[in-house]
Amino acid sequence: MAESYPIHGRIDGPVVIVGFGSIGRGTLPLIERHFDYDRDDIHVIEPSGEHADLLARRGVRHIPVALTPDNFRDVLDPLFACGKGFCVNLSVDVGSLDMMIYCREKGVLYVDTVVEPWKGFYFDLGVGPEARTNYALREAVKAEARANPGGTTAVSCCGANPGMVSWLLKEALLKLAADIGRAAVAPADRDGWARLMQRLRVRGVHIAERDTQVARTPRPRGTFVNTWSVEGFIAESFQPAELGWGSHERSFPAGGRRHAAGCRAGIFLDTPGIVTQVRTWTPAAGPQIGYLVTHNEAISIADYYTVGSGDAPEFRPTCHYAYHPCDDAMLSLHETLGTGVEQEKAVVLDEHDIASGEDCLGVLLYGHARNALWYGSRLTIERARELAPSQNATGLQVTSAVLAGMVWALENPEAGIVETDEMDHVRCLEIMRPYLGAVEGTYTSWNPLKTRWPQLGGPEDPADPWQFVNVLAR
Amino acid sequence: MAESYPIHGRIDGPVVIVGFGSIGRGTLPLIERHFDYDRDDIHVIEPSGEHADLLARRGVRHIPVALTPDNFRDVLDPLFACGKGFCVNLSVDVGSLDMMIYCREKGVLYVDTVVEPWKGFYFDLGVGPEARTNYALREAVKAEARANPGGTTAVSCCGANPGMVSWLLKEALLKLAADIGRAAVAPADRDGWARLMQRLRVRGVHIAERDTQVARTPRPRGTFVNTWSVEGFIAESFQPAELGWGSHERSFPAGGRRHAAGCRAGIFLDTPGIVTQVRTWTPAAGPQIGYLVTHNEAISIADYYTVGSGDAPEFRPTCHYAYHPCDDAMLSLHETLGTGVEQEKAVVLDEHDIASGEDCLGVLLYGHARNALWYGSRLTIERARELAPSQNATGLQVTSAVLAGMVWALENPEAGIVETDEMDHVRCLEIMRPYLGAVEGTYTSWNPLKTRWPQLGGPEDPADPWQFVNVLAR
Repeated sequence: MAESYPIHGRIDGPVVIVGFGSIGRGTLPLIERHFDYDRDDIHVIEPSGEHADLLARRGVRHIPVALTPDNFRDVLDPLFACGKGFCVNLSVDVGSLDMMIYCREKGVLYVDTVVEPWKGFYFDLGVGPEARTNYALREAVKAEARANPGGTTAVSCCGANPGMVSWLLKEALLKLAADIGRAAVAPADRDGWARLMQRLRVRGVHIAERDTQVARTPRPRGTFVNTWSVEGFIAESFQPAELGWGSHERSFPAGGRRHAAGCRAGIFLDTPGIVTQVRTWTPAAGPQIGYLVTHNEAISIADYYTVGSGDAPEFRPTCHYAYHPCDDAMLSLHETLGTGVEQEKAVVLDEHDIASGEDCLGVLLYGHARNALWYGSRLTIERARELAPSQNATGLQVTSAVLAGMVWALENPEAGIVETDEMDHVRCLEIMRPYLGAVEGTYTSWNPLKTRWPQLGGPEDPADPWQFVNVLAR
Repeated sequence: MAESYPIHGRIDGPVVIVGFGSIGRGTLPLIERHFDYDRDDIHVIEPSGEHADLLARRGVRHIPVALTPDNFRDVLDPLFACGKGFCVNLSVDVGSLDMMIYCREKGVLYVDTVVEPWKGFYFDLGVGPEARTNYALREAVKAEARANPGGTTAVSCCGANPGMVSWLLKEALLKLAADIGRAAVAPADRDGWARLMQRLRVRGVHIAERDTQVARTPRPRGTFVNTWSVEGFIAESFQPAELGWGSHERSFPAGGRRHAAGCRAGIFLDTPGIVTQVRTWTPAAGPQIGYLVTHNEAISIADYYTVGSGDAPEFRPTCHYAYHPCDDAMLSLHETLGTGVEQEKAVVLDEHDIASGEDCLGVLLYGHARNALWYGSRLTIERARELAPSQNATGLQVTSAVLAGMVWALENPEAGIVETDEMDHVRCLEIMRPYLGAVEGTYTSWNPLKTRWPQLGGPEDPADPWQFVNVLAR
């Protein structure tokens, strides 16, 4: 007897999935499982023919085209001529901003997991590092939202991170408030959330992730092995490292740069993520060093929780990613750095390739009365295999967030362009929770000075452990 | 029918092996195979009882004691009362200098693979970084050699590296001379070798190693996994990074420090090897980034090949280790750095644990008319298993060098304290060669600027690729 799953809503018009990499392949079964829609009107736009048979078996129409700035309207127009439907952008190299503008013009709901630029952006070294930041990409989306408020909903950056972590952060703040005896009533608006974080004396937030998934066979040299998009990870690893810059910081990092325009919530460093490491903590591994890879949520969270404005607000948390990818990806990154070229082969480990491990992804709120609280999802590969087909633990944390974003958009179809910080975290986590394994909060007495080998010299600021200059491992 | 192996000499008196880690266990069968000695008079001094059964089966007397500055004479006196024999020091935490002084007083031949200090030295942070350098350890041995020249032979630092690489370097210089049309007659003395390197316009030498041996099972978190002594590798990884400082260098590295006394051939950095990475090249992997872990040969080679003296000699090569350990050790080092403590468990992968791979260890001579020449041993795990029992490829490169050092000492019993640079490289490599797999020379057009990602900024010295500041990855 087939298991039964809740139907979260009806999608009128076509469902169009753009991109069919590991996330696309994992999202499709969740869409099939949780939405009512016309089974003859679902499409995947994906240039590779690699999965054509799978799509045919599932009754999905395959459009084998790479979308470009020149052709995307022509490809999408026939699909969305009806003026309704859902566009689920899970691609690389397809410009998110143009896609969401187009969809909103057509009255088509839209979701993506990243502000993706058109092909060429990430490695266009002619434009200087500032232009290659996620800050710049996000500002373009924010400008469009300001210029055209309201209207058809387009959810920006709704994966695991960016995405789910913004919802977990709100749950974590309420837990922290309760645990230190403060009123734990959910604030009603952005300003309320920012002031709650300020009152709780949270100084910053790491998006603290440890992926312990290990492959059954050793990584071959010359192959980039990861648990999600290799192309996506390499691209962001070579963008400048970026972080939300908190109001408690008193030492600007060497090589740090502010932006001349925009929300001012973030700064960038003169080093890319692939050589920018930070000290953090996760329950999967305890203290660890991860990569400060730029991510949209580092800026959006710092911006959302700002009290005041500009370069010297009354309150703003420091926020950045602190990512220890799976061991094979660690080795792959080191190899990429040493050879000076991308590997010729890329492998995304699927649920069958992985012997064991978990993706432990959450938010580490630090600097408050309880020192630090990690709050997040610990999803093992074994549990992921039970919960949904065609994905590993990393994938399911992303695809279930896409599912939640789609449900929220269906329930809020005229919300305009939104970020996940602005969405109803309770509803979104309700949709996701069956897929997240253990969602848990753990306090730790760790801080970045506690695990610093004295042979390294320093620290930069011995009097204040949570200064970013102490978090930065190099 | 048992294979027959050449007997390289007779050891009169007891054979005493100090330490029975992976190298001790691999050396024992080579001693059994290649020397004539009294089979009732072979001893292993090793505090652990872990291998007591093995020793008993092999007829080796086990002395379960940890040697200390206070007890080592008492333990050794009964063994060496006869005033002859061979002491093979393959231990950690047993002071090499005191051991060689003792052995020479007794008329006992001696060999080790490192200038090992007594327990506590490596992590004694009270004494400052300079005192924890290999430069300081080597200077103490050199001072003893100067104070008491000649006499019973004690071979210092005779493993794969330090050790074998010094012999390979001489073979490489003769190959390079021949290949660029110079007279390739082996020089007769140190000055001749130094002037040959100078004439060949070699600017520096990397001890360039890539260990591609991979385990059959994934590394468990919280375990330091290596292909040789975990304790030894951790200790040297936390010493200051050190290198021989070449006369062609025009930019002193940030954080570099000269020594106030001694041969002046080396400098040290204010960072330990575990966070000091360098760009290099091996035939196993092409361009790669390895660790600049301090090693005796970085100083001894720079010293041996100096023309002139002091801080500004007429000629001196830059020389340092550039080590990409096996993947599991890479991950282990990263974990150690992140947790701030040594792992509780240590595993040395033995020949059965390893699925595939090779240890590719040689010298990279760079800056000359043919750009760069890698010359070394490429020994696969499969070949190592065929050649000798009880060791992986890494081990066999070390133990066969110990064998060569023992043979040379037997043949040159009154040479005093010697380093491998001073020994007959032809004879030593003749002994070793059956155990080294492929010994090969490969020219490459690579230099450190060719594989530098432009996103990293720099380089430090775009006009001169082989400057150390370009080699340094961070």
